This record gives sequence, C-alpha cells and structure tokens, in this order.
Amino acid sequence: MSGNTFGKLFTVTSFGESHGPALGCIIDGCPPGLELSEADLQKDLDRRKPGTSRHTTQRREADEVRILSGVFEGKTTGTPIGLVIENTDQRSKDYSKISQQFRPAHADYTYQHKYGVRDYRGGGRSSARETAMRVAAGSVARKYLEQRLGIRVRGYLSQLGPIRAEKLDWSQVDQNPFFCPDADKVPEMEAYMDALRKEGNSIGARINVVAEGVPPGLGEPIFDRLDADLAHALMSINAVKGVEIGAGFDAITQKGTEHRDEMTPEGFLSNHAGGVLGGISSGQPIVASIALKPTSSLRLPGRSIDVDGNPVEVITTGRHDPCVGIRATPIAEAMMAIVLMDHYLRHRGQNGDVAVSTPDIGQV
Amino acid sequence: MSGNTFGKLFTVTSFGESHGPALGCIIDGCPPGLELSEADLQKDLDRRKPGTSRHTTQRREADEVRILSGVFEGKTTGTPIGLVIENTDQRSKDYSKISQQFRPAHADYTYQHKYGVRDYRGGGRSSARETAMRVAAGSVARKYLEQRLGIRVRGYLSQLGPIRAEKLDWSQVDQNPFFCPDADKVPEMEAYMDALRKEGNSIGARINVVAEGVPPGLGEPIFDRLDADLAHALMSINAVKGVEIGAGFDAITQKGTEHRDEMTPEGFLSNHAGGVLGGISSGQPIVASIALKPTSSLRLPGRSIDVDGNPVEVITTGRHDPCVGIRATPIAEAMMAIVLMDHYLRHRGQNGDVAVSTPDIGQV
Amino acid sequence: MSGNTFGKLFTVTSFGESHGPALGCIIDGCPPGLELSEADLQKDLDRRKPGTSRHTTQRREADEVRILSGVFEGKTTGTPIGLVIENTDQRSKDYSKISQQFRPAHADYTYQHKYGVRDYRGGGRSSARETAMRVAAGSVARKYLEQRLGIRVRGYLSQLGPIRAEKLDWSQVDQNPFFCPDADKVPEMEAYMDALRKEGNSIGARINVVAEGVPPGLGEPIFDRLDADLAHALMSINAVKGVEIGAGFDAITQKGTEHRDEMTPEGFLSNHAGGVLGGISSGQPIVASIALKPTSSLRLPGRSIDVDGNPVEVITTGRHDPCVGIRATPIAEAMMAIVLMDHYLRHRGQNGDVAVSTPDIGQV
Amino acid sequence: MSGNTFGKLFTVTSFGESHGPALGCIIDGCPPGLELSEADLQKDLDRRKPGTSRHTTQRREADEVRILSGVFEGKTTGTPIGLVIENTDQRSKDYSKISQQFRPAHADYTYQHKYGVRDYRGGGRSSARETAMRVAAGSVARKYLEQRLGIRVRGYLSQLGPIRAEKLDWSQVDQNPFFCPDADKVPEMEAYMDALRKEGNSIGARINVVAEGVPPGLGEPIFDRLDADLAHALMSINAVKGVEIGAGFDAITQKGTEHRDEMTPEGFLSNHAGGVLGGISSGQPIVASIALKPTSSLRLPGRSIDVDGNPVEVITTGRHDPCVGIRATPIAEAMMAIVLMDHYLRHRGQNGDVAVSTPDIGQV
Repeated sequence: MSGNTFGKLFTVTSFGESHGPALGCIIDGCPPGLELSEADLQKDLDRRKPGTSRHTTQRREADEVRILSGVFEGKTTGTPIGLVIENTDQRSKDYSKISQQFRPAHADYTYQHKYGVRDYRGGGRSSARETAMRVAAGSVARKYLEQRLGIRVRGYLSQLGPIRAEKLDWSQVDQNPFFCPDADKVPEMEAYMDALRKEGNSIGARINVVAEGVPPGLGEPIFDRLDADLAHALMSINAVKGVEIGAGFDAITQKGTEHRDEMTPEGFLSNHAGGVLGGISSGQPIVASIALKPTSSLRLPGRSIDVDGNPVEVITTGRHDPCVGIRATPIAEAMMAIVLMDHYLRHRGQNGDVAVSTPDIGQV
Repeated sequence: MSGNTFGKLFTVTSFGESHGPALGCIIDGCPPGLELSEADLQKDLDRRKPGTSRHTTQRREADEVRILSGVFEGKTTGTPIGLVIENTDQRSKDYSKISQQFRPAHADYTYQHKYGVRDYRGGGRSSARETAMRVAAGSVARKYLEQRLGIRVRGYLSQLGPIRAEKLDWSQVDQNPFFCPDADKVPEMEAYMDALRKEGNSIGARINVVAEGVPPGLGEPIFDRLDADLAHALMSINAVKGVEIGAGFDAITQKGTEHRDEMTPEGFLSNHAGGVLGGISSGQPIVASIALKPTSSLRLPGRSIDVDGNPVEVITTGRHDPCVGIRATPIAEAMMAIVLMDHYLRHRGQNGDVAVSTPDIGQV
Repeated sequence: MSGNTFGKLFTVTSFGESHGPALGCIIDGCPPGLELSEADLQKDLDRRKPGTSRHTTQRREADEVRILSGVFEGKTTGTPIGLVIENTDQRSKDYSKISQQFRPAHADYTYQHKYGVRDYRGGGRSSARETAMRVAAGSVARKYLEQRLGIRVRGYLSQLGPIRAEKLDWSQVDQNPFFCPDADKVPEMEAYMDALRKEGNSIGARINVVAEGVPPGLGEPIFDRLDADLAHALMSINAVKGVEIGAGFDAITQKGTEHRDEMTPEGFLSNHAGGVLGGISSGQPIVASIALKPTSSLRLPGRSIDVDGNPVEVITTGRHDPCVGIRATPIAEAMMAIVLMDHYLRHRGQNGDVAVSTPDIGQV
Repeated sequence: MSGNTFGKLFTVTSFGESHGPALGCIIDGCPPGLELSEADLQKDLDRRKPGTSRHTTQRREADEVRILSGVFEGKTTGTPIGLVIENTDQRSKDYSKISQQFRPAHADYTYQHKYGVRDYRGGGRSSARETAMRVAAGSVARKYLEQRLGIRVRGYLSQLGPIRAEKLDWSQVDQNPFFCPDADKVPEMEAYMDALRKEGNSIGARINVVAEGVPPGLGEPIFDRLDADLAHALMSINAVKGVEIGAGFDAITQKGTEHRDEMTPEGFLSNHAGGVLGGISSGQPIVASIALKPTSSLRLPGRSIDVDGNPVEVITTGRHDPCVGIRATPIAEAMMAIVLMDHYLRHRGQNGDVAVSTPDIGQV
C-alpha cells in the first residue's frame, strides 16, 4: 500500500492538509463491541489542540471530530471507523511569498522535488496538523487497550531544551502546559519559553512514553519486531530525529553484566531492555524515548533559495509552536497505542491457540 | 503479511534458525537486467562472517550462498531471487541446560511466552545468525543502487564502549576487525576487547551509516517516511536499542537557528537533518546512527529462572561475540540499502511522470 | 492491513454504512498533477445513483461527493485524496423486525456471527451503498488512465436474466437504464423488469468490462497476476458470484488449437486470453465478465430464523433494486480501472528502467 | 509488497524457475505446535507430481521437499518455514529456437515485454512447475485446518473437455489419474485423452473444490471478502480463466426466490451461495469451481512472431501435459486451504474476543 496507512490488522489510513477543507482518517480492524463516542476522542484531541497556552501556536482550531461510521448504538461494530475534523481557522493570508521560496529545514523543497507541486498553505500535508488524526486514532486504540487488556499508555516531556525533568510524578503531567512530570521545573520552562519567544527562536525536546500492563508475547520477529514497529511509528511523527527503547544510546557504554536484566521468580530486577527482548514484549513496561528537533519556522532570517534557485532570505511570520515537543506527548502516546493494538491483534491471530505454561513474572 | 517480510516493492522475506539446516531468503521485486553472481553476495557476507578475528565468535561458518532463482545468464530477470546458506558448523552440544532455563536479556523467555515452544539451539530464530541473509539481500540492493543510481551506502563503527572514533577515514574502515574509521584508535580497541574477553564480559557499540548520492524525493509521508522506514529497518537488527537520523538526540538542545540547514544555490550549508526533510530525501547524504547493546551471552553468572519459575544461575559458555557491534556494520549498511532500494522503486512507481523543475542543489 | 483497503501503490480504503452519517474513502498513491474536480467524480456517481429509473430502488440519494484533500488549485498533489458523501435519505423507519431476524441470502447472519453485533439499518456495511465510493475512486483511476495513458475502461450489461444482448453498440450503453449495448433488446428488458417488479421477485445479470489501450507488461506474477487481481476486485463487488477473463468457462471445451491466440506481425488473430498471458497484459483489450446474483430483498415470503434460532417468515418491504446488475456496470468499470491503475504504478516502479525492444503488436 | 507473496497473516512467498536449480517457498505465520514432517508435504506433492500416468507430462521430477526451518522436534515453532525442492530432471536441450520465438498463448511475449529479458528454459517462472510450492504450502494449511479445526478441503475434476462427471463419489477421486469422482466416466476420459495425444492437441477442464466444516465468520469485507480472496487465489493458478462461487454464472438466470438459500433452525435448505454471504463464511460448505484453458504447448503448428517481429511457425515438442486440468486438483485444494488458513487467523486476530450468541445452524 502507499505511505498513508499504518498497521497490519489495526490500520490507520490518514488524509488532510493544514489548510484544506478537512482532516480525516479510517481506522480499520477495531474489534467490535467497544463503547466509543466522539467525547472519548475529543478528550485526547483537546490535549493536543493548539492555542491552549501562550507557549503554543495561537491558531485556534476547535478540532471537533465526527465519527462517520463503524459505531452503532454506542459501540464499535468491527467495520471501519471513519473520522473527520473540519478545518475552521484557515486564516486567509497572502501565500505568494512562501509559494516561491523554500523555507529552510521545512519539507517545502523535498515535496516540490518529489511531487513537482505542493500545497504551500501552512505546509500542506507536511504540517504537524495531520497529527490530530493520529491522536484521534490512538484514542480508539488506547480505549481498547485500557478497557479490555488493562494496558495503560502514558507519556511525558522529559526534557525541554537544556531543562530536564528530574522527577517522574504522573499526577503532574496534565497540570502544566508542557506535560512535564516535574512540577519544580515548570517555572523554569515557562521562563525559558518566554525568552525564546521573545528571541524569535525555537528549541528541541525529549518525550518519553511508557506502556504498562503489556502482556509478554507481542511482536513479530524478525522484521516486525515490536521495537522496530515502535521505532517506525515514533520516527514517523513530525520533527522526530531519534528513537530509543529502554537504555537506548546508553547501552553503548554499558557492559553486559550491567545491561542484562536479571530475572527472579518475583520479576525482572531492572528494565534496560525497555520491555522488549528479541523483538517481543517481556511483560515489563515498554519504555521509549524520542528526540524532537526545534521548530523550523522562525522570525529570525535564514538563508535559502527560491523556486528558480536564486538566493533568498526567509523570515517566517505567522502562528507557530516555538517548541513542537510541547504538544507532542499525546501524539507519541497515540502512536505507541496504535502499535500495541496492532501487535495485540496480530499476536492473537497467529498465536491464539498457544497455551502459555511459562511463568509470568512481574514488572519492575 | 507476517513479520518476516520487509519492504513493499523490493521485499525481503527471510527464514532460518541458528542451528537448523539452513538460512534463506527471497528477494522479490529486484528489477531485471542487473548483473548478479554469487561472488557479489559473498563479498559482503565475508565481511560479516564470524571467526575472522579473535574479537568475534569462533564459530566457523563458510556462509556460502547459493542463488536458486531469479538470475539467468548472469543477470536478474525480475522474478524472485531465492538464496540459501546451509549451516555447516552446528557443533553437536548438550542443550539440556539451555532448554530448561531462560538466559537473561535473551529472547528465550519471550519466545517461550509467544509461541509456547522454542528452538533453543543457539537461540534458534532469535540468533543474530539470521542477519547473514540481511547482508546477502542488502548486497543485491547495494549493487543496484551503485550501478544504476550512483548511490553508495557505507558504514563504520563510531564507538566501541567508551572509545570513540575521532576521525572518519573511509579508507581505514575495512583495514581493521572493527570497521573503525580511525586507525589511531584501533590499538586501544584491541586492548579493550582483549581485557573484556578475559573478564568474560561484553560491551555495546555505535554504528554510523551514510548513503551518498541519494536523489531528492525518496520517502512516502506520512507513515512511510524515509526516516521512519529507516528506523524500522535499523531497529529490527538484533541488539539495536536506539536509532538517530542526522542530529538525533542532539536536536533536543539545539535552537532552531542552529539546527536548520540553510540553503544556498551552491547547496545546503549543514546537514543536521541527516538528509531527510518531511520524511523525504533532500539530496544530502542520508546519515543514521544506531546503538547496539552488549552481548547477553556471558561467562559471568547471572540470576534467572527456569521454565518452572525456579531461580537459577545462568552461565553461558560457548562461542559468542563479546561485542555484537563489531560485526554489525555490514548489517546496518544492508538494511539502509534495502530501504533506499524499496523507496526508490516506490517513488518511481508513484511519481514516475513527475518532471522536476526544482533546482537540484549540491550536497554538504 | 485489514479488509477495507484495496491495492498496493494506488490504494483505496473505504468506510461507511448504508444508514450511517456518511460514506467515504481515501485514495492513496494517485500521482500528482492530474486535473481533478468534484464534477469529474460526480459524472460517474450519477451513472450509478439510485432512483434514476423505475427499474432501480426509489431511494433518493444526491450522492454529492466532496473532495477533502489531495487536490490543490485543481490538480492532484500526490498526497491522499479524502472523499466523503453524506447520507441524506435515511428514511426513518421501524427496524425492530429486521434487527431480530436474518433475511435469507443477506449478510445478516454472517455479520452477526463474525462481529457479534450488526448495524441492521439497511444492511449496514454489507449494503451495496458502499459501492458509491468504489465508483468515486474508480473515477480518479479512469481519468488518469485515459488522460495519461490512453486507456479506456468501459462496461455494459450483456445479459439480464434470460435476455442476452446480441449486439455490442457502445453508443447505446448510456442511452437506456440498463447499460445495454443492444437497443433492440431494451423494450424486452423493460417489459421483463415490469413483470418482475409486479411479481415481487428479482433476477440475476451479467456485466462485461473491457479495457482498451492497455500496454503490455502489467501484472506481477505469480500471485499478483493481473487476472488474479481483477478476479479479486470484481468478486469483491456485492452479489458477484463468478468472474471470467477472456474465454472464461468456454475454455473448458476448447481445444488448444482453438483457444490459443495466434500472433502475426500485424497483431493477435483472436483474444480468447482476454488480454492476459501468464498473468501479464499482452496489449490486447482486457476482457472480463461477471455474474451477479438476484437481489435477496423480496416481497415474496421466505423461510428463515430469528436471532434466537426460531423459525420465521421474512418479507422485505422497502426500496430495493429488483436486479442489482442494472446499476453494476459503473461499479465493475471502477474496479477494473483501480486494478489497472495500481498495476500500472507497480509495473513502473519495478520495471521503470526496462527498455522494451520487443515488437509491440496491435490489438484484435 | 511484490507479487510473489500471498496472504496477510498466513503468507506464502515463492520462488523458482522451471529449469533453474530449485524451487522454494517461505510460509510465514503458521501457528506453533503443529506436528509437521516432510512426509506430510510429500503426500500432497506426489498427487501433483508429473509423470505418474501416460496422460501427463513425462518429465520425471522426484519433487522431494526439504524443510529448512520453522520445525523443531517434529513441531512447528511459529517461525517461518523454509521449503526447497531441487530440480533434478532439467533435460539438457537446445533452447535456441524458443529463445527467439514467442509461443502462442504462452507467457513468452508478455514476460519479454515486462522484464525485457526472460528465462526461456521450459517457460522459466511462468511454468506451472511453480505450483509444486503451492501444493507444499497448501499442505501445511490443510494439516492445520484438519487437525485443529476439523475443516476438510477436497477437490475433483468435474469436467474434462466435453465429458462431465455426473456422480460425486469422493472415494473415487484418488482412484484414477484424473481426480474424477465418477468412475463410470473414467474409461471415456482415458479414450478421449489417448485420441487427443495422438492428434497432438490439448483440452480444457473444470475443477471443483469444496471446504467442509468451515465455521461461520471468516472473511473481511469489503475488499478482502472470503469469496474475493478465493477468486484471487484460484485465478492466480496457471491456465485458470474463470472462477465461480456457489451457483456462479447460473445465478444470472436465477430468480431471487430460487437463488436465496432459505434457513430453518435445522440448517440452510440449499447452498446457491456456495457458503459465503456478504463475503463471510456462513457455516455451509465453501464451494468453488474453476475453468482451466487447454495447454498451449502443441505439436500442431501455430502462427506467431519471433523476437524481431517476423512471422514464424511454432511447433512445441518436448514433454507437456495435454490437459493441465488433470493435475490441477491438488493445486486448487492447496490455494483454497491457504485462503481459509489466512482468513481463520485474521478473523481470530480481529474478532478473537467476540462471544457468538447466534444460533449456529447446520450445513446442507
């Protein structure tokens, strides 16, 4: 299939441009019988929604999602779920400049090269606006995972530029505009962002995502390993430049005796593996971490070229997130949930008659 | 499809256990007319082959590959290419212990949970032995990329545990057992490995892979972005715990003005993006970096459980790589080549009639 | 992926129930640069639309399609094309009976078994109403095939119950409510349908579809042969029970000397193959024929069971097509166009560098 | 993926040319724990094997299959099963003529056009020799279906040219070289074949395949309907020109009251649907019928062209089946089994938590 479908048994196919009439997606393969309403999706969409604090873009989108199919009398029917969000705040604007220039570090140049044409309004398809549909689709996955399997997928911002969260207090994550789990760091982050905004610059961030309650056995080696599909899913999010599972890059300098997670009848003694061994979930929490680059839309001028190859200086005005990482937590959660959902169904399909006699040891 | 196929138009489907009769794969979608012989594949296989230095496993495998189909009169015909490598050095050995225990940080526990059964001889399917077929398949991709498109994919070991390569001299890479591009560091690495082997421990490593000559336009947003598929491919390699594209995790602390790669009529001025913008190749070198965990097979005892859930102490004797990263360079090259080949064909399929008028600027 | 996506490079993913809020689909992989407007799609949709003659269901649906993405300034951009048709004539009705009974020869029983739940309003997902999206998607494929490649896909009703068309006059096909190419048979068909409607019964039909101008080379043996994918596509249309390529079932009694299509420098001398040899297009017209079963919704009572397994007598009132074949011609055309489009892109992807030196002989 | 993989969860990927070193396939997704040996596969391969009666090609192939992976201690492990059959009887022969000519009704012309090159020895990839791997893969599916689910897939030749079987006596099918279920017709068929061979001509045939014991619920509408996937699978077999499910083309002239299969608490009263309603199995036997064209390799001269476009007269000597239908029964059984296996796993994956409360009525 082409590039806008993710998953094998639980598939998400997406469409929509930043300033087109609407965004939408089709979720195919959701098991029947799950209670589902637009409110379920809205809850997650509102967490990602722009314009909720001064630290994100001031574009105002209601992001109101409509369920067009696949739900009957409040429950999923097993048929594809069609979702649509109409774009409402497509601010009329003069696009003549951006249509003739390639903004540095944006997808303008590569889309033009690939397709010979591009919808330059707000970045078109390459805009992070498409992530709204990832969140909506992830919402369906998360609900199934939680209600049927007791799997909880949660994320948080662990680093904003130079500022690292040092405590992981889940109860704090939704209490600040950064999804930061360390309340003590929030004032510092606010000050940092204010200064950055004034400067007209942007900054990168790190997001961690954790899935708890994942049963052992998910993942299809050797290519569709659970960690490989997670890497695919997470790296497909706009602005992501790196993905780690468990110890990640720290594993380079770890010795075998340090990295290996020893096991006892009471459970694993550590989780450097991040919950995946040999591409298959181990029953420990699945732990992933991603790096997001700084936003490329800056008020500070940058050198670039125009469509004829002439040098130009580009300044990006308009409404932009100075740190795309700030709104990325719900997106990363969504992608992890979609991967887990897909792999749960795949595992059930191929191994549904496996009677597991293995000791099921606890989490760390 | 199930988990042992990679790619959409250039697909690699693999089989084989560490101590089964043979390994093999089917390459489907290789364009016709490419000159191809077993010697082409053997060259790359020999670079990955075990037992070539004292720093890798002493298992002796000839890794002789046979081409069973898809090549006629020395050229590919467009039909699937079947490859087989017979396993020859399946040392007869007492597996009674390993069959009853789960080695820590190995896939024993997860395979048992997933399938209810496992071929415990040498790790079965989860053994890195399967990567031989990745290298063979990657060889076909690399030959096409080089001969038809002038794309060169090369990798090197950039870090061995605490020791970092500080120079990138491509001519050195194949001159030492580590694929290290910095000749000055080789003695230090040798000494480190000797001590490690004596200690019975293992260590992680970092491999970098670079593709030069990649035309702009490859990658299929939004899910099958080039970087996302690279992350999938690279994370699917045994022992990989992290993947970076371009600046990777350094992007977290970069400001927008620093990270964005400015463009001039003469080319990009930097390559923090790693050659991918919006999920599509930019014409710059594609740069990826991966972290490999230390080998889990150690002579030093580790706590674990047996199949009945009782605590056991596990010692792994036998022939093992104390640093799996040492032999991983050809594997990483292979996976990047397979991804590029697949995306080249996909791009040509969907955009074959695009007349590109965009300025094609140089590499940095 | 799950079951609501068709195609590999040109993919159509569909959603929507008969009496839900809307139908929709996503077309992924359409090459950029194709002029496309809603009017293009509407033209084909109007040919399939219900309620245009007394011989089809009297349900009145405007079937107005909206393009939500993938088109910019009147041309496709290469990004996914989202389409939606809102359902307008969902006549409020008492569904209590149908919710408790399984209509014979309908999908009620099997949907209930598969999903444990079903949207019984008008057949839900199993209603032929979903074919509207096939027609819309097929429209995009047909436009590309015609404008870029000179491929024309056309169909006609060749048999209505016992009445066979004996002449193939393409100019007549759109001049009567049956898509019948033999004007002389139309009065007979009208009389037959009037009697049938009075009787409360239904009848089967045969549709033929032909693609002219197809270049040799399309089709990917051995499983994704062009004829195999056509069979998949055509058999996936509601009510289809048989698919033939070329001579079809007549081939059973043909001798080799009769069936084989001899070739001369001026072209093939016959087309028993239906334009496909070895699963690959030969340059001759692609010819397929399908059998559609009679509608199962009848006013004449039939024996069945209710959800508790008790015997019931079922009478289906409401608005139904007494011959689903009558409106099936545009649907069959659409599916053939989608298959050809997909295979054209696949062939271009994998064989785009093949320089064909073979004599290209004419059509018969 | 490319064209040599069939299935989504139970996938078969195949390679091999008629006169290359070997044929092979990879079965991915077979559940673990199934007892499997080479003897299981050999049994079915021997039924398809050439040279077992005077009515089929006299090529002598042992068709000895080796299992290279995926089976451990006599049971499947859930990892991919690699199979290989070495070609032994590649009679050395002068191919200079066939390399320069296109045999009429063969794939010579289309392969040359598609790939620009072809392995002309014995038809290369387009030879029916590849069907050996279908049979081997089908064998695995059949064993699982029978042992785990009580599903039995069986086929028979229902028509040989003008001669129709009039009785269906399953016990006769393996008692004659035609897989004919009507013993009374066998002498007539033998005489017919003898005359045909003397004449140097060939003839078509019809094969029926039936699956009994299939639970209701298999099939993934709307595109991956069970009947659509069966049509795909069966039409992908060499020489097949038509596929019917249930009533097939007879449905054209059936009235609704005749075609619809009424239901009672004791079961369906007929099976015109062929066991599929709305693309989903109904619990009745799945019934399919296929038409095979006459062999194109004839001693009687036919007009054709050579690679330069000049007219030539082609005579095919060598060893050929005068009726490919004769050996096609095991192949059709194999493809139906593969489809059912794949859909069983898909259904279990997506609907594994459905508690079916529907009355499960009997077969007819």
